[in-house]
Amino acid sequence: MNTLFAAMSVFVVALSVPVVKANEPAPALMPWPAEIKMQSGRFRLDSGLRLAVDGQVSDRMAGAATRFLRRLDERTGLFLAQNRISTADRDSTAQIRLACHRPGRLELFEDESYRLTITPAGVELSAVTDIGILRGLETLLQCLAADQDGYYLPALQIDDAPRFPWRGLMLDVCRHFMPMEVIKRNLDGMAMMKMNVFHWHLSEDQGFRIECKTFPKLHEMGSDGFYFTHAQVREVIAYAADRGIRVIPEFDMPGHATSWFVGYPELASAPGPYEIVRSWGIMDPVMNPIREETYEFLDRFLAEMTALFPDDYFHIGGDENNGKQWNANPEIQTFMQAHGIPDNHALQMHFNNRILELLTKYGKKMVGWDEILHPGMPRNIVIQSWRGKEALIQAARQGYQSILSNGYYIDLMQPTDFHYLNDPLPADTPLTAEEAKRILGGEATSWAELVTPETVDSRIWPRTAAIAERLWSPATVQELDDLYRRLNRIDFLLETVGLTHRRNTELMLRRLADGGDIEPLRTLIDVVEPVKIYNRHRQGKTFTSYSPYTRAADAAHADQPVARNFRRLVQDFLQQRDRTQAEQIRLLLARWQANDAALQKTLHRSPISRDVAPLSKSLALIADHGLQAMDRLERGKHLTAKELDAARLDLQQAKQPAAECELMVVSAIEALVESAATKAKSR
Amino acid sequence: MNTLFAAMSVFVVALSVPVVKANEPAPALMPWPAEIKMQSGRFRLDSGLRLAVDGQVSDRMAGAATRFLRRLDERTGLFLAQNRISTADRDSTAQIRLACHRPGRLELFEDESYRLTITPAGVELSAVTDIGILRGLETLLQCLAADQDGYYLPALQIDDAPRFPWRGLMLDVCRHFMPMEVIKRNLDGMAMMKMNVFHWHLSEDQGFRIECKTFPKLHEMGSDGFYFTHAQVREVIAYAADRGIRVIPEFDMPGHATSWFVGYPELASAPGPYEIVRSWGIMDPVMNPIREETYEFLDRFLAEMTALFPDDYFHIGGDENNGKQWNANPEIQTFMQAHGIPDNHALQMHFNNRILELLTKYGKKMVGWDEILHPGMPRNIVIQSWRGKEALIQAARQGYQSILSNGYYIDLMQPTDFHYLNDPLPADTPLTAEEAKRILGGEATSWAELVTPETVDSRIWPRTAAIAERLWSPATVQELDDLYRRLNRIDFLLETVGLTHRRNTELMLRRLADGGDIEPLRTLIDVVEPVKIYNRHRQGKTFTSYSPYTRAADAAHADQPVARNFRRLVQDFLQQRDRTQAEQIRLLLARWQANDAALQKTLHRSPISRDVAPLSKSLALIADHGLQAMDRLERGKHLTAKELDAARLDLQQAKQPAAECELMVVSAIEALVESAATKAKSR
Repeated sequence: MNTLFAAMSVFVVALSVPVVKANEPAPALMPWPAEIKMQSGRFRLDSGLRLAVDGQVSDRMAGAATRFLRRLDERTGLFLAQNRISTADRDSTAQIRLACHRPGRLELFEDESYRLTITPAGVELSAVTDIGILRGLETLLQCLAADQDGYYLPALQIDDAPRFPWRGLMLDVCRHFMPMEVIKRNLDGMAMMKMNVFHWHLSEDQGFRIECKTFPKLHEMGSDGFYFTHAQVREVIAYAADRGIRVIPEFDMPGHATSWFVGYPELASAPGPYEIVRSWGIMDPVMNPIREETYEFLDRFLAEMTALFPDDYFHIGGDENNGKQWNANPEIQTFMQAHGIPDNHALQMHFNNRILELLTKYGKKMVGWDEILHPGMPRNIVIQSWRGKEALIQAARQGYQSILSNGYYIDLMQPTDFHYLNDPLPADTPLTAEEAKRILGGEATSWAELVTPETVDSRIWPRTAAIAERLWSPATVQELDDLYRRLNRIDFLLETVGLTHRRNTELMLRRLADGGDIEPLRTLIDVVEPVKIYNRHRQGKTFTSYSPYTRAADAAHADQPVARNFRRLVQDFLQQRDRTQAEQIRLLLARWQANDAALQKTLHRSPISRDVAPLSKSLALIADHGLQAMDRLERGKHLTAKELDAARLDLQQAKQPAAECELMVVSAIEALVESAATKAKSR
Repeated sequence: MNTLFAAMSVFVVALSVPVVKANEPAPALMPWPAEIKMQSGRFRLDSGLRLAVDGQVSDRMAGAATRFLRRLDERTGLFLAQNRISTADRDSTAQIRLACHRPGRLELFEDESYRLTITPAGVELSAVTDIGILRGLETLLQCLAADQDGYYLPALQIDDAPRFPWRGLMLDVCRHFMPMEVIKRNLDGMAMMKMNVFHWHLSEDQGFRIECKTFPKLHEMGSDGFYFTHAQVREVIAYAADRGIRVIPEFDMPGHATSWFVGYPELASAPGPYEIVRSWGIMDPVMNPIREETYEFLDRFLAEMTALFPDDYFHIGGDENNGKQWNANPEIQTFMQAHGIPDNHALQMHFNNRILELLTKYGKKMVGWDEILHPGMPRNIVIQSWRGKEALIQAARQGYQSILSNGYYIDLMQPTDFHYLNDPLPADTPLTAEEAKRILGGEATSWAELVTPETVDSRIWPRTAAIAERLWSPATVQELDDLYRRLNRIDFLLETVGLTHRRNTELMLRRLADGGDIEPLRTLIDVVEPVKIYNRHRQGKTFTSYSPYTRAADAAHADQPVARNFRRLVQDFLQQRDRTQAEQIRLLLARWQANDAALQKTLHRSPISRDVAPLSKSLALIADHGLQAMDRLERGKHLTAKELDAARLDLQQAKQPAAECELMVVSAIEALVESAATKAKSR
C-alpha cells in the first residue's frame, strides 16, 4: 500500500538533494492513515525541543499539546525543558508547530482530518479543527523511534482523515460497576485509537448507575451505592471532550429496566415489588407503556438527563423486551385491542414514539438498538445494529442512519481478525452510494456480565484497536500479518496511557498461584482462551454479580498471541519446511510438554488454579505427539497407525473445554500430526 | 515468641481429646497479633459457608463482612452462595459469627481489640467495637490456607489489640497530585495493615489540592486543575470510615504555602505576584503574621475546612519556614520590635497561637510538625516529630502528646529493617511511664517530589507494612528473618486489594525496554536500588514537577528482595560453608555475569534505558570476581595478589552510583572476595 506515494517521494528527494537517501521505514501506526509517504531523514529529539501553536487555539489544543510533551518525556526520559503549552505559545521558530483554523465541535461529521509533515528540521501538524490536531498528535507519538544516537521522528508526510464519522466504544457499567478510573483510562485508549464516541450504558436490570436528582430512589435503591454523581458525569464529559470524544448516554427502556422498578415499581407492567437483579439473562420486567404516569415520569427524567449530557444524540436502548409482562397484564391487552395495536412490537413502537416526542422536545436525536426500527419512525433516528448486518442494510435502504455493532461484541472473546474484517460497508455492499452514506460507522460493545474493573481492559484491548482501524482507515487496509505486527506494538503503547490489560493479568496469575512462581501457569494460559460467544455460561458454573471473576478463564485473554503465532508458524512450516521454523516449533512443543510437571507445584499450592489440570495434561500429551510428528516429518518418515490413533485420541480429548477455557494450539498440532501421517508416506 | 501460649494450648488439647494432634503452623500474619495460640484442626471452606453477625451491628460492620466474603471468594474461587451481609443476618448456626458490643467511634484511643477463635467447627470473632471486628476480619483473611483437600482456616485463638493508638500514613498529594483511586487503594492497604490514621497533606508550595468554596482562587489558581472537590473529600472520608480509618487534613502554614499566594498574594509577607512552584526545596514565601487580614482569611478558611473534616484533630504543618521574607519585610521587623518578639521562632509561635485560637473555636485540636512546639503552647496539641526522636522525648517530658515520623520517611528509599527497628518507645527509653503514655504512635510519610501515581504504591508498600507492625504489635516482636518471611507473603496480599506496587513495575520495565523483552532489565533492576535519603537530587539531574519519573531509578524499589536475600545467603555461606548455599550463590553470580551481554539488545533498542549501562557492566565484572572467589573458597585456594587487586578495583568502581541507582550486592561479593583472599590462606 502507498507504494505509489513512496515512489513519488523518492523522486522528489532525488530532485532536491544531490545524494538519494533511502526512505525511512514506516512506523507501526494504528489506525493506519489514509495517505502516508515515507521520506528520508530523521528529526532528532533532545531536551531543547520546543513546541508552538498557531491559528485559533483552544484550551483543548493547548492541553493536548501539554499532554503530548509529557507523554513524550515519559517514554524518552529526555527531561524536556518545555513544561506547559498555553494558547499563547506561538514561537514560530519552535521545531514542532501545530496549527488549526478553528476549535472543533463535538458533533457528528465534524472535521477530524490533519496533515503531518516531519522533516529533519522539524514537525508541522495542521488541521481544520483542534480535534484534527488531537488525532495528529496521537499519530506523531506513534512515530517515535530510536537509533544509536537517540530518539528521532522519521521524515514523512501523512494526510489523514477518518472513513466513518462514528467510531465508538460502548461500556456497560451496570452488570459490573466500572469506577471513574476505568472510564478515564479507556477514554485515553480510545483517544490513542482516534475513536470519537463513548457510549455509556448507564441503566440495566442489574443496576441504575447515575445519580438522578428528580427521582433519587433510582440510584439510591437501584445501585447498591455504585453510581456516578452528576459531578462525576460532568467530569467524564469534560475529560472526553478534551480528547475529542462525544459522550452518548444510554438508558435502556422499556426492557432491561428492573433496577428502575426497585424504587418506582409503578413504572413496571406488573405490580412488583422488585429487587436489583443479580443474575444474567433476559428479564421479564418492562415499563408500562399504557399509563400516562409512565410518560410523565420519563418526561421529567429526560429533562434532567438531556440537560446533563450535551451531545445531540441520546440512546434509549430498546432491546430484548420479551413481552411477558405485557402479555400477562389485562389492562395492557385491553389497551392494545382498543387502539388496534396488533402485537408487542407495535406496542413498543407506540412507546418509542412517545419517547421520541420527549427527546425531540429536549432537542435530542434518538439512538436505539435494532428493535426501535419500525416503518413510520422519523428518519433522523439512528439505528445501532446488534443483530446482524442485514438490519443495517435494511435500515439504510429505508432511509435510516445506522451504526454497526454486530461483529464488534468484544466481550464474546472472539479473535481480532474476526472483528477486523467485519466491515460496516464491505466492497460488495448491495447499497447505493446514497444509501451507503447512511452507514455512519460502528461501535465496539463491552458488555460486563463476565467482566470486572480488574479484567475490563483486557476484554477491550488490544482488539478494539483493530475495530478502531476498521472504522478510521481506508477499506483496503486489511492485510492481517501487517495488522498483527502493528497491533503487537500498539498493545504495548496502550499500556503507557494507563490501561491495565497486561499488568492486571500478571496480578491475576500471581493470585491464581497464591503468590508462588507464575511461570508454569503463564506458559499454560498463554495458549488458552476462554470459551467464546456465550459458551462460558454453559460449562457448569452459574455466574452472578457476586461470582469470583478471578479464575483461569478470567486471566486468559482472547486471541492469545503465543497461540496465534504458533498456528501461523506451523502453517508456514508445513508449506516451506524451513529449518528455523522447525526449531521454533520444537522449542515451544518441548516447553509445553514439560510444563505440566512444572505446574503441579502451583496446583498443589493453590486450589483455585486446579481446574486447569485437564488443560495442562492435554497440552503436555499433544505437545508430545507434536514432537513425534516433527521428528517424523524432518526424517521423512511417517507415524505408525498405532501412533496416529493415539495422537488422534489425545487431540480429540484436547478439544474439550475445561475450566471454561480451550486450548488454542490443538488444530496446529493436529495439522503436524496429520501431515506426518500422510505426507511422509508420499516421500 | 508465644511459645508459652503454644505449649499451653497443646496441654489443653491433651486434656480434652484422647489423641494429641500437632498444632497447625502459624500463618504469616502482619501485624503480628498480641497473643496467638495455634491449635490442632482445620476449619474447611466451601461454597456453603455462611457468615452471621450479632450484637449492635453497624452498616460499617455489615459492609466489611460483605467485602470479606467477596475477597475470600476472589482468592478461593469457591462461588460462595452468600452474597451480601446485612445487619439482620443473625443466623446463629452460621459457621462464621461476628459479634460486637457497639459501633466504634473514629477517635483517638477507641477500642480496636478483638478475639478470634477458629476451630474445626467454625469461626468466632468478637470485639468491643465494630472497628475491632474490622481488624479481626483482616487477620482472618490472612489465615486462609490450603491443602490437598482445598481451602481451610487453621485452628487458633488470637487475642489482639494495638500497642499504639495512632498508626498513620501521610500522603503528599501536592508535589505530585494523587487521584482518587490512589487514595482509595492505599486506604485499603492501610486497612489490611490495621492502620487507623490517613494524614492528607493537602497544600504545598507546589499545589493547593482541595476545593475551597470560600476562597475559590485557592484551588482555581493554585492547582493546575488537580484538586479534590468537597464531594470527593467526603467520599474519601466515608471510604476511610468504612475501614476504621480517621482522616486528618494538613494545611501547611505559614510556610510551604506559595500555592495559596497565587490567588491571594496579600496573604504573603512579600508583595508577589506568585506562581505555582515547579521545583523542589524550601521556598521563601510565607504568610504575613502581622496583618489582621491574614487571620480573618484563615478564620473563614478554617470555618469551611473544619466543617468538612469531622476528625477531632487538624494538622497545620508549621515546618521549614526559612524566615527570609520576614527578615526582609520592614513592617514585620517593626512589629517584632514593638511587641518584643525576639526572633522568627517566636514570631511563628505568635502565628501559631492565633491559629490555635481559631481551631479551638471550631472544636479542633491542633497537630503540627516539631516546629510548632514552644514553651507556652497548651498541652492538648500533638507534635509530629520529623526531625528526630530527641524532639519526641522533649515533647513528652514537657507534657505534649506526640507521634513519630522521623525514621518513617518512606520516600527516602531506606530498607525495611531500618524503619522496622525504629521504635517510638524503645526498651531503653528515658521517659517515665506517665511520659511514655504521651507517645501516641507514629506515621509513615510519603512525600512526593520523586513520586507519581504510577510509582507511589511501590514507594509506600510493602515497607509501610513493617511500620504498621511496629506500631501495632508488642515491642518484643522484632525478629528480622521472621519479618521478612511474613513480609514476602504480605507483599503479595497487598496486591490483591488493588495496590499496584508490583504490576506497575512490570509496566515500567516494559516501557524502559520499549516493549521488548524485559528479563535482562529485570535481572539488573532486581539488585539495584535508587540512591537513598536525598542523594537522588545530587546525581546531575534537576527534578521538577514535569520531569519524567519513568527511568530505572523509578522502576527500582527500596530494599530489593533479590539483593537482600543474596546478602543474607553470602553471610550464611561464609559462616556455614553449605554446599546448597554455594550452589545458589554460583547460580546468581553466573546469571549476573551473563546479564550484561543479554541487556545490550535492550540498551540498543531503547535510549531511555542506557543510563544503566555502567551498573550492568559493573555487575558483570564483580559477579565474575565473585565466581572466582567461590571457586577458590570451595577448593581451599586463595586469590593471587593480582586477582585480588583487580577485584578490589572493580568492587570499588561498582560502589559508584549510576542512573541515580546503586548496586546492592557489592558488599556481599566483596565479602566473598575478601574471604577468598584471607581465609583460604589459613586452611
